[in-house]
Amino acid sequence: MNQRVEKLQAWMKENEIEVSFITSSENVFYLSGYFTNPHERLLALVVFQQEEPFLVCPAMEVHDAKRSGWDHEIIGYNDIENPWEMIQSSIQKRIRIVSKTAIEKEHMNVERYEQLSSLFPKAAFISAEEKLRILRMIKDAKELKVIEEACALADYAVEFGASEIKEGKTELDVLNAVEYALKQKGVTEMSFATMVLTGTNAASPHGNPGLTKIKKGDLVLFDLGVVVDRYCSDITRTVAYGDINDKQKEIYDTVLKAQLAAIEASKPGVTAAEVDLTARRIIADAGYGEYFPHRLGHGLGISVHEYPSMTETNQLVIEEGMVYTIEPGIYVPEVAGVRIEDDLFITADGAKVLTNFPKELQIIK
Amino acid sequence: MNQRVEKLQAWMKENEIEVSFITSSENVFYLSGYFTNPHERLLALVVFQQEEPFLVCPAMEVHDAKRSGWDHEIIGYNDIENPWEMIQSSIQKRIRIVSKTAIEKEHMNVERYEQLSSLFPKAAFISAEEKLRILRMIKDAKELKVIEEACALADYAVEFGASEIKEGKTELDVLNAVEYALKQKGVTEMSFATMVLTGTNAASPHGNPGLTKIKKGDLVLFDLGVVVDRYCSDITRTVAYGDINDKQKEIYDTVLKAQLAAIEASKPGVTAAEVDLTARRIIADAGYGEYFPHRLGHGLGISVHEYPSMTETNQLVIEEGMVYTIEPGIYVPEVAGVRIEDDLFITADGAKVLTNFPKELQIIK
Repeated sequence: MNQRVEKLQAWMKENEIEVSFITSSENVFYLSGYFTNPHERLLALVVFQQEEPFLVCPAMEVHDAKRSGWDHEIIGYNDIENPWEMIQSSIQKRIRIVSKTAIEKEHMNVERYEQLSSLFPKAAFISAEEKLRILRMIKDAKELKVIEEACALADYAVEFGASEIKEGKTELDVLNAVEYALKQKGVTEMSFATMVLTGTNAASPHGNPGLTKIKKGDLVLFDLGVVVDRYCSDITRTVAYGDINDKQKEIYDTVLKAQLAAIEASKPGVTAAEVDLTARRIIADAGYGEYFPHRLGHGLGISVHEYPSMTETNQLVIEEGMVYTIEPGIYVPEVAGVRIEDDLFITADGAKVLTNFPKELQIIK
Repeated sequence: MNQRVEKLQAWMKENEIEVSFITSSENVFYLSGYFTNPHERLLALVVFQQEEPFLVCPAMEVHDAKRSGWDHEIIGYNDIENPWEMIQSSIQKRIRIVSKTAIEKEHMNVERYEQLSSLFPKAAFISAEEKLRILRMIKDAKELKVIEEACALADYAVEFGASEIKEGKTELDVLNAVEYALKQKGVTEMSFATMVLTGTNAASPHGNPGLTKIKKGDLVLFDLGVVVDRYCSDITRTVAYGDINDKQKEIYDTVLKAQLAAIEASKPGVTAAEVDLTARRIIADAGYGEYFPHRLGHGLGISVHEYPSMTETNQLVIEEGMVYTIEPGIYVPEVAGVRIEDDLFITADGAKVLTNFPKELQIIK
């Protein structure tokens, strides 16, 4: 059995859960190594305390599931078979009584829940999601390697984007050029909708790229990420097009100072809140506290937002193996928006920064 | 009240449903005119038999919701408020007893279902989805107009893609060029992942575009769609690069004959099965029956797959106002794959074809 499934099984034993019924593509992938988007069809990984787990997927995907390395049972169903009956009999072959079942309550829909409840009318259903979030929070060497590749491509994307900035080009012009360049490198998926924002558009923490033209004296903000082998990267850089004014410069310097301090503070043993507050205090002391309206960062991995959540109240203790972003920002409406974001891997005594595009202010001429 | 909400209310009265709790972005948009992707946050449109409906959304979206034209109550909640309590009191202000509630059982997750059940412990929950699918199946003039725009852009995309075919270009080269050209025209979303498949790759009904190079004598299959104002188009064309052989030609001609016959058969009063079988028999009679493994087509609108489902067993009667695809295909492994797909609008006495890229075999020199 792989270690991830074993950790889930240990939790099931502690909590007297006989069956875990995992249904999200991300968590099935995390535990089995097999990724698929089954659209409206059922995908499930069924795990027991001792007995052999099994995977349920559409019949046409069984071959791919085997090739992905999952070496336990795979149950394929075609469009005229009822997968629920197959699941019921496969579970009953393994265990006699199902009294406590873990499911993904945020993922499973009511229709499936009613199906499962009718198969096991005496079962209580509890949520498996929190446990899986905690398991996924600590990355192994293989995961780190893939995330590093995704980060290198994110660096390339920002570098390419900065080189595309020219008088009169729109945000969408630059955005499309960046994504096109990534596709030429074999990238097929972004972590989220790429952002290229300029001027006062960048002064909203969630602006939408559009037809605004870049002009001299603007700051241009890039926020993007690349998916490699199902793992996400996430980088933000703000660059200057031509000379910027003192106010813009002061905002940039404040964000950078806060960002560097939060990276320095990131190490095993501190809390997420301490890291967030390290940056938040610097921004507040510079008089911009009200213009930093979001958390400092978030974990990332198979999902672009994972644990740990880097908020000023989260008392979670940082541990070796975590991967998270540090992304303070200052957004002064009608003046300027600056955000600087890196992805970090927590080591035994500090943090390794995985995104490497320069952070000293880049001035595009 | 708008007509769509009124139709839902009529159904609620017939079925003694006091509350409909609609949560998918697509159905909230269909009924209210407001589209948002709320990600993990709650979005809901709550409809009663008589009383004023209300919309629930994150506080920061209230302004957009108002601007979209929804002129009934909007309840915004911020990240520290509990939307469920607000919903409970808003419902209780309107009606005293909730005994039967319609929800989207395929959309709502178990976590929310438990919340809603605890607010209304005596309520029975039934599914609203089938009714909404049936309502959405008949398009009005405004919907048709938007779909026509999306179809015109799909035509352009195929035309542009065909012009990009050159010796040595890969499937992804052509795909990226097509999507880039669409972005230059302001397109921000495709209906689904664009397909450009060549040679034997096209001989799988669900191939993935990759680094295969296009070469003379290949058929090249485009399957793509464009989203305009939330409505989807969906087109497939197969073109020849240079001279193709007799077998490829025979397959192409068979698919085209089947496709044209199914369009001719499309009119109010026939069943979906009759339309499917019209094409299926032509393909079977030509000896390719086993190589046409999918349904003839599907409805489309806000979703790329809607009702009616054009299968050989669906006895649903075609009506004026439906929009669906006709897309027969023949896939002979290692030989050739051909699919030809149009989007149709059903008129009083026939069908209007909305996609117009030529269907006589286009030979790219």
